[in-house]
Amino acid sequence: MQISVVRKVLEANERIAENVRQILSARNILTLNLISSPGAGKTSLLERTLQDLSGEFRMAVIEGDLQTDNDARRVAATGAQAVQINTEGGCHLDGNMVLTALDSLRLAGLDILFVENVGNLVCPVEFDCGEDAKVALLSVAEGDDKPEKYPLLFSLAKVMVLNKIDLLPYVDFDTARARAFAVKLNRDLKIFELSCRSGEGFAQWYDWLREQCAAKKQP
Amino acid sequence: MQISVVRKVLEANERIAENVRQILSARNILTLNLISSPGAGKTSLLERTLQDLSGEFRMAVIEGDLQTDNDARRVAATGAQAVQINTEGGCHLDGNMVLTALDSLRLAGLDILFVENVGNLVCPVEFDCGEDAKVALLSVAEGDDKPEKYPLLFSLAKVMVLNKIDLLPYVDFDTARARAFAVKLNRDLKIFELSCRSGEGFAQWYDWLREQCAAKKQP
Repeated sequence: MQISVVRKVLEANERIAENVRQILSARNILTLNLISSPGAGKTSLLERTLQDLSGEFRMAVIEGDLQTDNDARRVAATGAQAVQINTEGGCHLDGNMVLTALDSLRLAGLDILFVENVGNLVCPVEFDCGEDAKVALLSVAEGDDKPEKYPLLFSLAKVMVLNKIDLLPYVDFDTARARAFAVKLNRDLKIFELSCRSGEGFAQWYDWLREQCAAKKQP
Repeated sequence: MQISVVRKVLEANERIAENVRQILSARNILTLNLISSPGAGKTSLLERTLQDLSGEFRMAVIEGDLQTDNDARRVAATGAQAVQINTEGGCHLDGNMVLTALDSLRLAGLDILFVENVGNLVCPVEFDCGEDAKVALLSVAEGDDKPEKYPLLFSLAKVMVLNKIDLLPYVDFDTARARAFAVKLNRDLKIFELSCRSGEGFAQWYDWLREQCAAKKQP
């Protein structure tokens, strides 16, 4: 009984997410769903990316948080369009929340839409938001066992961003171990090692964004 | 319709959690539910605590994870009793999982039972596991805005452990800001600043455990 209710919720979400995907694909907008633990650096990744690529791409952000509009303010300060969704206790974004948020964005001319999910390695993974790809972030302060312990995200993501590599000298994080677990789950996973604080390692991430944007615009 | 199903689930959980609480309180076992983001250091806090206090208290651990028995192995290596619950994708522990795990523990003579919840700042907070108190962990690598952004946990917890203070020189974490947010939500919150890596700051945490254990044994 309860399982069937959950399944109906997920099916309804998939239909709405598919609708979101069609709206955005019709405009050739690359849409990325950023998922991580709280504090892994999703907003910091966006701040730097929005600043550095503002001359190249038109970008917008949908921010998901339980409470506060802190993150939308942070990304709006870069000049990008930003919409805040407050889930008020809800542990993930879903297709309908993103669909509703699209009404508050000017989509014309947009190249990239980032959806920053609620900080949570579990629930957001199950709810399609209409994205082209999920981007998993993992901070090296969280431990190298996270791909093994939270496998669904790393199986489904197209990219894993290993953030806070500036902290590597001060934590017990074995990069090779984290990579090996993640690639065992998902051998096509692209992995970028970077530091949102120092800016190290962003070039490959930016090249990947350029590639994905170009692919999205191909007829 | 869907809301009423959720409410029934929560009510059923509260009844079972109350049953767990009665079983453990009848034996004067202090029961603590550890909740944090993935990688904030719950298992590391337990490893050190179990080692340091093994001569003083008899302790056991119920480990909650989506997958793997890594954490139960880590704590069992200290000599403590450990049971692993694998939620297989489930985002939190609940009263029934803890009740079932109690069958695998020798409760006689036990002083403290630690329940290490699934790494998640959102969902575990809503499910009573029959504990005496929730202990919130926050790593300074996660950012000082977490009490403001995930308020429910910090409102309901009796303790906030600020972990990884050895990383303070390398991250932008304003301890006073994190404390102020947390205390605004919960003015009775006890806050301990410590490092599971260096061992700094554990004395106050241990004193608090001694106090709580003594209170639990008073007639």
